[in-house]
Amino acid sequence: MLGNAIQPELEELITQRRWEELRAIATDFHPADLAEIIIDIPPEDEAVLFRVLPRRIASEVFAHLPTEHREGLVQSLTSEHMRSILEQMTPDDRTHLFEELPAEVTRSLLGSLSTEELKQSRELLGYPPQTAGRYMTPEYVALRADMTAAEALEHVRRTGRKAETLTVLYILDPGGRLLEDLRLGSLVLADADTKVADIDDRPLVAVHATTDREEVLKEFEKYDRFALPVIDDQGHMLGIITADDILDVAAAEATEDIQKIGGMAALDVPYLEAGFVRMIRKRGGWLSVLFLGELLTATAMGHFEHELERALVLAVFIPLIISSGGNTGSQAATLVVRALALEQVRLGDWLRVLGRELGSGVTLGGWLGFLGFLRVVLWQTLGIVDYGAHFLLIGLTIWVSLVGVVTFGTLAGSMLPLMLRRLGLDPATSSAPFVATLVDVTGLIIYFLAAAALLRGTLL
Amino acid sequence: MLGNAIQPELEELITQRRWEELRAIATDFHPADLAEIIIDIPPEDEAVLFRVLPRRIASEVFAHLPTEHREGLVQSLTSEHMRSILEQMTPDDRTHLFEELPAEVTRSLLGSLSTEELKQSRELLGYPPQTAGRYMTPEYVALRADMTAAEALEHVRRTGRKAETLTVLYILDPGGRLLEDLRLGSLVLADADTKVADIDDRPLVAVHATTDREEVLKEFEKYDRFALPVIDDQGHMLGIITADDILDVAAAEATEDIQKIGGMAALDVPYLEAGFVRMIRKRGGWLSVLFLGELLTATAMGHFEHELERALVLAVFIPLIISSGGNTGSQAATLVVRALALEQVRLGDWLRVLGRELGSGVTLGGWLGFLGFLRVVLWQTLGIVDYGAHFLLIGLTIWVSLVGVVTFGTLAGSMLPLMLRRLGLDPATSSAPFVATLVDVTGLIIYFLAAAALLRGTLL
Repeated sequence: MLGNAIQPELEELITQRRWEELRAIATDFHPADLAEIIIDIPPEDEAVLFRVLPRRIASEVFAHLPTEHREGLVQSLTSEHMRSILEQMTPDDRTHLFEELPAEVTRSLLGSLSTEELKQSRELLGYPPQTAGRYMTPEYVALRADMTAAEALEHVRRTGRKAETLTVLYILDPGGRLLEDLRLGSLVLADADTKVADIDDRPLVAVHATTDREEVLKEFEKYDRFALPVIDDQGHMLGIITADDILDVAAAEATEDIQKIGGMAALDVPYLEAGFVRMIRKRGGWLSVLFLGELLTATAMGHFEHELERALVLAVFIPLIISSGGNTGSQAATLVVRALALEQVRLGDWLRVLGRELGSGVTLGGWLGFLGFLRVVLWQTLGIVDYGAHFLLIGLTIWVSLVGVVTFGTLAGSMLPLMLRRLGLDPATSSAPFVATLVDVTGLIIYFLAAAALLRGTLL
Repeated sequence: MLGNAIQPELEELITQRRWEELRAIATDFHPADLAEIIIDIPPEDEAVLFRVLPRRIASEVFAHLPTEHREGLVQSLTSEHMRSILEQMTPDDRTHLFEELPAEVTRSLLGSLSTEELKQSRELLGYPPQTAGRYMTPEYVALRADMTAAEALEHVRRTGRKAETLTVLYILDPGGRLLEDLRLGSLVLADADTKVADIDDRPLVAVHATTDREEVLKEFEKYDRFALPVIDDQGHMLGIITADDILDVAAAEATEDIQKIGGMAALDVPYLEAGFVRMIRKRGGWLSVLFLGELLTATAMGHFEHELERALVLAVFIPLIISSGGNTGSQAATLVVRALALEQVRLGDWLRVLGRELGSGVTLGGWLGFLGFLRVVLWQTLGIVDYGAHFLLIGLTIWVSLVGVVTFGTLAGSMLPLMLRRLGLDPATSSAPFVATLVDVTGLIIYFLAAAALLRGTLL
């Protein structure tokens, strides 16, 4: 056995965390030899070596291991040691080096865990966060295709497990590949002699372990399932995701969208559990970007200082005008972002959306402008404020500006999410504050242009 | 029979839509007499008369009807005629006059419908929108408590139905009251001779037909169920709600929250399907309220016109200052609204939330203020803008104001949802634009007070 000869070198690579080299050396060997090496080295290093192997090789190595070593290996894979090694690696390294485990290892790993350990240890499987692999449980009953309905029912009774895992049964081939799923209800209704593979049930829907949870949620919604099987890319069954887990996913996805719409990066953890620094970062990042954008308002205002000097009354209505644009923009963005998420609106609908929002903008802007005009006229005639002889023109400036600003707000708010989607970005990024900032700058320009046009020769 | 005597009067009341009087007259009779009247009047009026009866009386009248009349009545209840009558009534009238139907009528009504009709006709049952009654289906299998497991399995096989409705079975007493639920899995695992009532399964969880869908969703999340039975207030089983329907509810609830956070009334229908007038109303209502609030900024600005006249440069930074407060306020409100919805934050946590947001506000405000200060100093030294000799003081005013405004924003944004919840209102009402408006007004005051304190003797 050459195991003894290279062992010190391997150990050194492991202690020095030189994963790439370890991987390069390891793949030079025959799987049977690698199995020998794994048997020889200390148990805590077994798992590390095994983990860096490319999946196909790892699968063969696993097959060459004696049963007690397989069990030992699975235990090592969930050990504290393994976890600390994982935590010390950068996510990039992890994805690069830690390929998915062979299906049989994944299954025994998941199966050996208590519920409390499950969540924590799913991370060790190497599936990226927020993918199906992170939500699956190993609690399902597998059937062979050649079983009769009666044999299958007997098998269900014998293997027992918890009743909720019996809702759907899974027919696997001898290699562990998923062939069909079968609801217990269909099995009960079937004739005793029918082969389970021949029982008519809905077509199989399965998700891959690396499928994003948002996609998994959509599959659940589309196919009205109580559970979906999770497979690896060779079609081996790894586990199931149940509807109650998917409800949690739905809530988490909604939270993510809501926080983005609120103008921050998704927090990912419950509000009160988020560390102070983490929270400040998630919020401060976007706030800084928005602030830099908002600095443009100071630049814009600077350009109109001359007008302000001559008609200071214009300054008084600035917050009113720009915030009205921001508010309508927020509404439009929120509507379109959510409609895109629910697939009620698609990219191809952009012209219809544009038409609707143009109509909404002019109508809403006209109405708010009328309120603004009324305010100026009322305050003047009631003697509350004196806007001077040209108060009607000032009122008109506000009215016209609001039509322009509000219309721009609805258009910007509704088109921005569509543009982001078109660019392959998350539409929810066009948050309410983002749109408001965009509209603030443009709103100022619209306002002062309207003032220049309407008040030239009188106030300006 | 006195049926003939009063029939014309009844018919007149029906044609004239005088529901209250109809109800008053009808309840004067004995149920058996009412049954006679119903048999005698034209089929299209039968249902209307039956519908306005108080439930207890309706139940007895139903019991007095011959079988073919029962079926006819159930058909009439789902007829076009019935639907148009319902549509013509105001929601108030409907709730007042149309009490819930007796359980047996509800069940036969639901059972007689095709899937396409189901959604539309659930409205006819008289349960308010967004309650459990609007989501239930009649597709379930009922067992008697004295059945053995073997008999129950045989019953399941015999009654058949679609396999997905077999996931959970329901044990009813002879009067149709729900006693227990039982998963098919538990039934399959049980000994053949065990009485179904004695099979150990999870405790029963049921929802009332008038339970709000948000509560139903919470029950699903809490108890990890695939289906929940729906009962009336006497405990009669009416139908079931399945997990796939609840996923739709989860999406709809998230949409509602998102739209409220975006600063509008929930739209209730897909964006592109909403009528123009409906959409304008849903958006215009909140916008008008926000606009009226925002008018206060004009008032506030009016009070500081003297300061503006002396230091016009202050006007230049107004949009920057108030929008930064609005943005941080939006973030805080969004975070707390969502955390409240997910029950990650409760009313009792208000002090912890206050502490966190105070810290966040000072930190974020300090950082943004620093950026603002930097901008003034840089633009001045680079010669882009000339803020005059006191540019450092102006920069400082901006810095201090931002700390104040941003801190006020986080506090207002986070406390407002908690206050709304405390008052029994929907926390999501404290939308991003609502908080932004609140902060705009206060932000102006903070800004001018800071300016007054720091610039007195120099610019002011």
